[in-house]
Formats: sequence, structure tokens, C-alpha cells
Amino acid sequence: MKKITKILLSEKEMPRQWYNIQADMPNKPLPPLHPVTREPIGPDALAAVFPMELIKQEVSQERYIDIPEEVVDLYRMYRPSPLYRAYNLEKKLGTKSRIYYKYEGGNYSGSHKANTAIAQAYYNKQEGIKRITTETGAGQWGSAMSFACQHFGLELLVFMVRVSYDSKPGRKIMMNSYNAKVVPSPSTMTEAGRKVLEADPDSPGSLGIAISEAMEIAIQDPYTKYSLGSVLNHVILHQTIIGQEALLQMEKADDYPDVVIGCFGGGSNFSGIAFPFLREKLLNGKNVRLLTVEPASCPKLTKGKFMYDFGDSAGMTPLLPMYTLGHNFIPEKIHAGGLRYHGAGVLVSQLLKDGFIEAKAKLQRECFEAGVLFSRTEGILPAPESNYAIAAALDEARKSDIEGVPRTILFNLSGHGHMDISAYEKYFEGNLPDHEMTEAEVEEAIAKIKLPD
Amino acid sequence: MKKITKILLSEKEMPRQWYNIQADMPNKPLPPLHPVTREPIGPDALAAVFPMELIKQEVSQERYIDIPEEVVDLYRMYRPSPLYRAYNLEKKLGTKSRIYYKYEGGNYSGSHKANTAIAQAYYNKQEGIKRITTETGAGQWGSAMSFACQHFGLELLVFMVRVSYDSKPGRKIMMNSYNAKVVPSPSTMTEAGRKVLEADPDSPGSLGIAISEAMEIAIQDPYTKYSLGSVLNHVILHQTIIGQEALLQMEKADDYPDVVIGCFGGGSNFSGIAFPFLREKLLNGKNVRLLTVEPASCPKLTKGKFMYDFGDSAGMTPLLPMYTLGHNFIPEKIHAGGLRYHGAGVLVSQLLKDGFIEAKAKLQRECFEAGVLFSRTEGILPAPESNYAIAAALDEARKSDIEGVPRTILFNLSGHGHMDISAYEKYFEGNLPDHEMTEAEVEEAIAKIKLPD
Repeated sequence: MKKITKILLSEKEMPRQWYNIQADMPNKPLPPLHPVTREPIGPDALAAVFPMELIKQEVSQERYIDIPEEVVDLYRMYRPSPLYRAYNLEKKLGTKSRIYYKYEGGNYSGSHKANTAIAQAYYNKQEGIKRITTETGAGQWGSAMSFACQHFGLELLVFMVRVSYDSKPGRKIMMNSYNAKVVPSPSTMTEAGRKVLEADPDSPGSLGIAISEAMEIAIQDPYTKYSLGSVLNHVILHQTIIGQEALLQMEKADDYPDVVIGCFGGGSNFSGIAFPFLREKLLNGKNVRLLTVEPASCPKLTKGKFMYDFGDSAGMTPLLPMYTLGHNFIPEKIHAGGLRYHGAGVLVSQLLKDGFIEAKAKLQRECFEAGVLFSRTEGILPAPESNYAIAAALDEARKSDIEGVPRTILFNLSGHGHMDISAYEKYFEGNLPDHEMTEAEVEEAIAKIKLPD
Repeated sequence: MKKITKILLSEKEMPRQWYNIQADMPNKPLPPLHPVTREPIGPDALAAVFPMELIKQEVSQERYIDIPEEVVDLYRMYRPSPLYRAYNLEKKLGTKSRIYYKYEGGNYSGSHKANTAIAQAYYNKQEGIKRITTETGAGQWGSAMSFACQHFGLELLVFMVRVSYDSKPGRKIMMNSYNAKVVPSPSTMTEAGRKVLEADPDSPGSLGIAISEAMEIAIQDPYTKYSLGSVLNHVILHQTIIGQEALLQMEKADDYPDVVIGCFGGGSNFSGIAFPFLREKLLNGKNVRLLTVEPASCPKLTKGKFMYDFGDSAGMTPLLPMYTLGHNFIPEKIHAGGLRYHGAGVLVSQLLKDGFIEAKAKLQRECFEAGVLFSRTEGILPAPESNYAIAAALDEARKSDIEGVPRTILFNLSGHGHMDISAYEKYFEGNLPDHEMTEAEVEEAIAKIKLPD
């Protein structure tokens, strides 16, 4: 093992293809269904919402998909991203394990979301689209999309989940600085939003509601499309650049992970780092565990049900086969706004069901504690979402030390917490509540799921 | 010219020595004087405030000073920092010039301040010091020092200029997250602070006042030392790692700057990038212009007087030969808090006087306008301080196009603006005032300077 803190790749070494896990899944995911006929829907059914090239990627079975030169050009601003060996954290823990993290917070958006934002804006522009609508939770995805749209000359309208809109004004202004329009969701701009506000004028909002609002606006105009920041296959495809790079970097470090960890909202940062390692396992027999970490207050992977459900609150998406807490479920107002989503992407759901992925849930306070320890050793103040991955990495290191088996642990540090300072303030004041959803609460939530007859 | 966006160096290529301009200055700076005797003071007079190794660096005439291995180790977390070619900005401007920027905002502190914070914390630790006191304006320096002290096991007490403390609570919490104690200045903890509050209970504070407070605490205890984030020779020495890297990176880009630009508060980010290029000019005849940019509301370089003055408001420092607006001058509350300092470092002052450096002053709004243009093209939201360098780089590009002479422009993007979002909000709302200090106001300020008889 060479002693290097920061493992870099040159621009030349940046991978020029995304990896599509669909090519290698032992069990292919079940098809999306039309909500009324329950028949599998074809790509055309999505054409009102997404540009054709992204729809093709959504269903592609090709193992590798070339990254367009214009996307590579913008990736060059911040990619390849660094992979760090966390020497100072290891020392503080006194662990015999080696801990690495891939840092995706170093780009303009402050998170991994830039990787798909750039690609999505590019494909929309190519197909003559003028305007994009989207949702954002914590604001990372909205920031990512704002600059990407600005770069390619597209207008952007962002529905920002109200609880984040109110608690993180900085993200809104950041999106404005990149020239986007930002509206708190639920809003009165859409029928979906008005319906929620009628039932609860103080609704904190959810990603599911914001998605409904953004889709509703998009389908009204042929030059407007909708864009999603996680969950879908094409989004996850674009994020695999993370794992593609990490594979090369682990090789440079002359090491290989025993476990790869990512926090979990819809699945994109986890899948982005994990799927290329899963490929190496499936095709080349390289052993590795893949571990997702979700909030105990939104435990779709650990306690949710695998079933067909909507991806949004108003039921505008096709029915998707996924682990879910119900498309109308509104998660507790935890500070990891990016993890407040009721369902899991189709690919991750199938792979979890088939035993290729592990999932665990953690409480908010322990994750902030891990994040503060990380900031005091490694120097980077993490996004609240990323704190879940850090906490799980600490668990793995401790477990390894107890077992007396040093391991190599790799996690995705999906973003920085510069815009989440108020959450850290609450943590330091001791005002960060913990909430764990019980089995009974989950059952109740799932019992409320209503699908069309 | 190869087409590369991001010019990186490997850890191996990171320079292992700082560059000391004192070795090569045609006119050495005048000595610091004892405020009462007006005799040159020796290194020993500073021993109550600084550790001996930093005092040695303050007066060293050696051209190169080795960077200790423990400092290199921590530099490795984020250094070498990237140098970017601003293709998208160039395209937007339609300029024929080439614009490069060295980005120092990618580290834990969000600015170049980490470069000297790590070194200062290290040398203090080496000499058995237990606690550091310091000042901070915008909070970048305080954040930098917080993590550095945490890493080396030192306590830190930060006096934060009140106007920044109130307008930028995020920076305070960031310092807390790195385990530092933060107090708004002027405070009631010190005689210097109490004196200011007596005269003006609503004093917005200034860097000069905060320095007095921090020094007052430090000299009361042999295990406590004071640490300064700019101005002094040893601080500027540590920052030369920026220019040392930039020289290697410009070589990799197969290009060389016609002009090197930095914003100006006390001199450290400007000197850090500029002095290694000045060495190449002095020793190897490589032509280059060096341009500092200060706020028109605090124009010590363009309108101030070259004279002996104090570095702090209460008159605790030795008398230093510098361009100054008077040590009791309190600059307008502009949003570039890091530039609100009454004086200029001794080295820059001498070099400006001798014609090796140019200075210009700019108004706040134009600089924010430049910063927003930069963020929309290059993706990075700059610190308000850095916006001054960007605005001057745009001036240089426009001038070059008018003259029909394409030039190579390099500026130091000293930090990101994630913690300065409220300033951008004011800019977007049209609530950012411009203030230019007139010659008469400057004369009045200088007439108020009172030195001991």
C-alpha cells in the first residue's frame, strides 16, 4: 500500500462511458405499468415528460453508454473527483481498517447531483427543449440543475420542498445565482399542489408532492420537459461515473474495498458508486458487500414493502415495482432533506430483493455525531445526507476491530454541508430529534396506499 | 496550447518549499519600530506573541524555507489546488485573451487561509503552546485556524468582527464544528474591546479592533500565543505555495501570464500567488504585471499614505512601515469582510512604493456583478472578496480586446461564497450600496492618526 492521502486521476483517465447495470442483472426489473390498464408501458408513454434519448437510456440493455463530448467537457470542470484515504479519521478511531471516501462535494452544486444534471440538460437541449421543470428536496439537485440549464441555455423552474425552502434559504439564492426560478412546494401553481394545501395548509411538502407539481407543469407544453434527480434508471446510469472512477483510484491505491457504502434517498449516489463494483462481482467474481443507509424515519428499504406504487404523490408517474412506504407518505422533517422520499429506485429495489445489496437504517443524531467527528478529523463538513454513510462506515470499522479482521471500507461522501449549517447548529444545541418509524407505523402507511382500480 | 480545463499537479509535484520575497527585494522593507523609543525592534520583542520559529521566518532573508513534513501531510488533504482555464467565461465575454484562475476555495476552510493556518498551528504546537487567540473578519481565517488547531490539539479563541458575526452566523457554527470558541468583537472580554464599546456601543467592529483583543488575551499567558491571518511576512511566506504551484501549472498549460491578479485585504492571497512570479521577473527577467484590487471603500493602496502606523486599533503592535488609512479607521460595512483592514502588509507596501506592483480600487456592486457572471459560466460561486479579482480580470480582458492584443490573465480565486449567500441575496434584491472613499475623507482619516510621542 502506498501512502497517499488523495488519489487523483488526470482528465485523460476520466472514464468516457457510463455503466448500465441492467445489462448484468441476474433478474431484470419488472416493467413499469400503466396505472389503469396495468399493462407494461412502452417508451412512448414517457415522451411527454422526457426527451427520447433519456427514455432510451431508461430501458437500455447495453452494458456501456458513451458520454457525449459536450458532457465530458463540463465534467472536466470538476471530474475526476478525488478519492481520499481517511488517515486522520482512522487514527482517531484507532481502527486497523482502511477507510476511503470518494468526495463528490467539490463541484459547483456541492454534491454528486451535477453528474446527471449536466447529462439531462444536455440531452434536453439536443432535442430542442426550451424549459425544464424539476423538484428539489435539500436543494442540491436544484442547484445542480440550475447551473447545467444555464450552461446549455435552458430555463429552469424548481419546486422546492417547503420544509427545506424555509430552513435553507441559502440554497434558493444559490439557484437564483445560477438563474433558476424557485417555488416552494406544495404551491398554488398546480392542481397537485392546491389539493395538498386544501387538506393541509401547513404541509411541509415532500419530494413526492414536488415531483407531481413539476410533472404537471411539464406535460402542458411540448417545449417543456421534466427532470428527476434520482430514482430512475437513466439518472443512476449517469452517476456510475463515480464508481467507474473509484475503481481506477482503488487500483492506484493498490487496494480493493470489502464494503462500499452510500446513503439512500432514491438511490442515485449509492448506485453511482456501488454498481461498477457490483459489475466486478458479477462478471469477475471480485467479492464486495454493498451497503445502503437510510434514515430510521423513512425506512423504505429496511421496513417498506416491495410492490407496485407511484413515484409521486399525485399518481402521475407509471406504477413502478419498488420498496415503498406509500406514495402519499410524508416523512418526518429530518435535516437530510435529500433522503425524505417514500420509495426506492427500481434497480436498487430488485437488487435488494435478490440479495445483492444490504440495507440498514440509522437515527439522525448518531449520524450528525459521525459527521462532526469526520469534520474534525478529515476537515470536510459533510451534507446531513452523507452523514448516514459516514456513520455506517464507522460501524463497519468498529465491527471489524471487534472481529479482529481489518477491512477496506469505501464510502461515497456525496456532498458538503455548507448550506446545512442550521442543522449543525441544532445538533450543537441538542435540538435534533430522533425519530424511528415502527413496524406498526409502516404497516399503517402502507395500508393507506390507494392505487387506481 | 493544449486544451485542458483543469490543470492538476500530483502530490509528488507539490512544492516542498515556501518562497521568501525578502531575499530578492531590491529595497528591503524598513524595520518595525518600538512605538515609544522609535528604535528598530528585534525578534525578541515579538516573543510574547508569536512562537520563535515564526519570528525567525518573519525576518528571514533566506530565499527558500522548507515546509515541515507534518505541514505537507495536512496540505495533502487539498493541495496541490487546481488551476483552471476559464473557457466558458472567455466564451461568454467573447474575449481573445486567455483567462486562468487558481482555485483556493476547494479546501475545508473554503479559502487560501488554510495554507498558513496549518503552518502556524504546527509551529505553535512544536513550541509547547496550548492555546491560540486570533481575529477573523469574514470568518474564512477563523474557520481555517479552527480545524488546524483541532488537528494539532490546540485550543482556539476567535474574535470575530461583529458585523460579520451578525451577518454570517454560518461561519460561527462552522468554527464551532471544528471545536473553536467564537466571540463577537468588540467584546467585553478585553480592555481594548471595552474601550471601543464605551465610545460606541453599536460599533460594527473592524479587523484592527479584533486583533487588539486577541493580542491582549495572548500576552497574559505564556502558553497562549496570538495568530494573524494576513499582513505579516511569515503569513505571506506560507501563502507562496499558491504561486509556486501556479508556476508549474502554467508551464503544464504551455502558457505564461501577462498579468497576475489578487484581491487585497492585508495582502496574503495576492502575495501568495504573485510573489513567485515576481521572483521570476527579478531573477530571470520573465515579464509580468502584478495587480492588486481593493474596495473603493477601503482604499489604502490607491489613496492611503505610506508611513509608520500600528497594525491594530489599540496600538499593541510595533509601528510598521505601510500604506494605511489609520489604525483607528473603521471601513464601511461592505460584504467583502476580509478586505476591511486599514493597512497593507510591509512587503507589499514596499514593493508598491518601488513600482513592482500596481493597485486599483473597485466598487462593490460591479464586483458582485462580475462574480455572478463568473458563477453562471464557471459554476463556482465566489467569495465576495474574490469578486474583486474577477472584476479586475474582466477589465484586463476587455482592455486587451480594445487594444487588439490578446493576453494571458491569471487571477487567484481565493475562496467560495457558500457562507456569503446573504450578500448575494442583497445584490439580487438591488440592496447592495456602493461607497467610494474620497480623497478628502482619506485625508481626514489620516489626519486622525495618533502615534505615541
